[in-house]
Amino acid sequence: MKQRLAAVRLVAALSIAAVARAQDTLPSWNDTAPKKAIIDFVERVTKEGSPDFVKPEGRIATFDNDGTLWVEQPIYTQVTFAIDEVVVMAPQHPEWSEREPFKSILAHDRAAMLKFSIQDFEKVVAVTHSGMTVEQFREIVRKWLAEAKHPRFKRLYTECVYQPMIELMQYLRNSGFKTYIVTGGGQEFVRAFAGPTYGVPLEQVVGSMGKVKYTYGKDGEPELIKLPEVLLIDDKTGKPEGINMVIGRRPQAAFGNSTGDQQMLEYAGAGDGARLMMLVHHDDAEREYAYGANSKIGTFSDALMAEAKQKGWIVISMKDDWKTIFPPASTKQ
Amino acid sequence: MKQRLAAVRLVAALSIAAVARAQDTLPSWNDTAPKKAIIDFVERVTKEGSPDFVKPEGRIATFDNDGTLWVEQPIYTQVTFAIDEVVVMAPQHPEWSEREPFKSILAHDRAAMLKFSIQDFEKVVAVTHSGMTVEQFREIVRKWLAEAKHPRFKRLYTECVYQPMIELMQYLRNSGFKTYIVTGGGQEFVRAFAGPTYGVPLEQVVGSMGKVKYTYGKDGEPELIKLPEVLLIDDKTGKPEGINMVIGRRPQAAFGNSTGDQQMLEYAGAGDGARLMMLVHHDDAEREYAYGANSKIGTFSDALMAEAKQKGWIVISMKDDWKTIFPPASTKQ
Repeated sequence: MKQRLAAVRLVAALSIAAVARAQDTLPSWNDTAPKKAIIDFVERVTKEGSPDFVKPEGRIATFDNDGTLWVEQPIYTQVTFAIDEVVVMAPQHPEWSEREPFKSILAHDRAAMLKFSIQDFEKVVAVTHSGMTVEQFREIVRKWLAEAKHPRFKRLYTECVYQPMIELMQYLRNSGFKTYIVTGGGQEFVRAFAGPTYGVPLEQVVGSMGKVKYTYGKDGEPELIKLPEVLLIDDKTGKPEGINMVIGRRPQAAFGNSTGDQQMLEYAGAGDGARLMMLVHHDDAEREYAYGANSKIGTFSDALMAEAKQKGWIVISMKDDWKTIFPPASTKQ
Repeated sequence: MKQRLAAVRLVAALSIAAVARAQDTLPSWNDTAPKKAIIDFVERVTKEGSPDFVKPEGRIATFDNDGTLWVEQPIYTQVTFAIDEVVVMAPQHPEWSEREPFKSILAHDRAAMLKFSIQDFEKVVAVTHSGMTVEQFREIVRKWLAEAKHPRFKRLYTECVYQPMIELMQYLRNSGFKTYIVTGGGQEFVRAFAGPTYGVPLEQVVGSMGKVKYTYGKDGEPELIKLPEVLLIDDKTGKPEGINMVIGRRPQAAFGNSTGDQQMLEYAGAGDGARLMMLVHHDDAEREYAYGANSKIGTFSDALMAEAKQKGWIVISMKDDWKTIFPPASTKQ
């Protein structure tokens, strides 16, 4: 009897420990449905002998970046970067003071910038994102990210990341998943910070791609030069297409926040076995932003919400499901 | 004294063990310069504290496929596959019996086929490599590879792989390297067999890429359909360009056998620290083939040989440096 009691106590202690471990795993998540769904999914796919068991090589999880891993309001970070770069490059381009869209940027004419067309942005991206080596470009991005701060949160953009999502990526990696970023943003832009910021290595960043050209520098050294031509727009249907180019297999889990992620979630969800598809819903104006169907940036359309409900995709309420939004401020603030 | 002797004996025994381990690692390699260079390179980059130490995440090794990992003579395996597929598909295409290049293929006119232009081959690849889902295509390739045999060696193409290179890939993986295939062949063609044949997962195959299109099948299921448009020719300058798209970092080691690999080796070699660049030279007509500067397939030009010497790239003589060429025949023979 004494022995049996001890065993019961041991089992109880172990169960409490397991719960505590799971709690520790996602400390910034409230104990609401999304957290439970994540832990349930991970336990099903990692438990050998379970009908939903997935071998480690099949454990692929893909994450959108803007609005899913970091703040995308009031304007995509990469667009802010491009605008800042135009200002930096302007002294070498006196003709820009009379030529749009550069003229409006240099005049800090926010009203004009808000009306920029896709073609205007393409011109800005072309001059700021090409004509240098891949490594030089990443270095420019790193230097900008080390200084530039978000206008509202007054912290580095790399600190405007969502702590619950960082914990989720880490939890998945600890469970044998390879975590990929699949972003509509530039592949090289995101590669510049994905390692230190998200723990995602260069080869696990899928993004919109420009062409690169192999050539030789002035001392005959091989160089990869970024060209202003687009190879892939890694958004909407481009996301599963980009996933196939770089990964070559269907993700077991996919995370997004907008209509740009719809096809990636559909593609992940159409596979066999246990699947996890989640959408971050920005409904927290106080701690971050509240936007959805009517936002130009990060549109979460009513149709997407309906599809999520119909297909069992889990909508994360930032307000209700996340205990904290951002990691602690660094000493750099 | 006795203690010292024991210590000396122990050290001697350990050294012998280390040598034996290295021997075991690459049993199909003769004890010539290439094997020594491989072991020396691996020891330098994996030894913590060594000036050439490379952190695990930087340990990337890239391998060409045709002529480097498997036989490419008398004709690229993928071309044989495409020709066989034309024959399989012909009943659904009665018009082919009167239309080149299909007419010559269906008439088994080898002389005409040898004169095919690039455009002819493009037509053959277009009809045999597009119009189906990525998964369907891989399945077609797998079924073909399960049956088709090499005309000279009378064994499956996946058994016409070079045993010393298989051992080298395994040795590098055991030493913390990620091994990638970087092939001029089709990315999806090679993905169909790279796992079981080379131990290389889908996401570590870089190859020539066709466009894919995300769409919905008849039951509304998401599909990635292969299109007949080319996105990347992963050969020559396309190899470092493809490496940047999929891997995003410079390989620490690169292995090839022809002018198609020149730029990949240059790119790898131009990085800092210890680097290993090797070229397989086909000089063994008896056990495999002997070809080089004058071969249309797998051209190893005099200029490439000169560059290899000048830059310290190691040329592997199949005849002198490899004990065996192929793995033991399977019971399927």
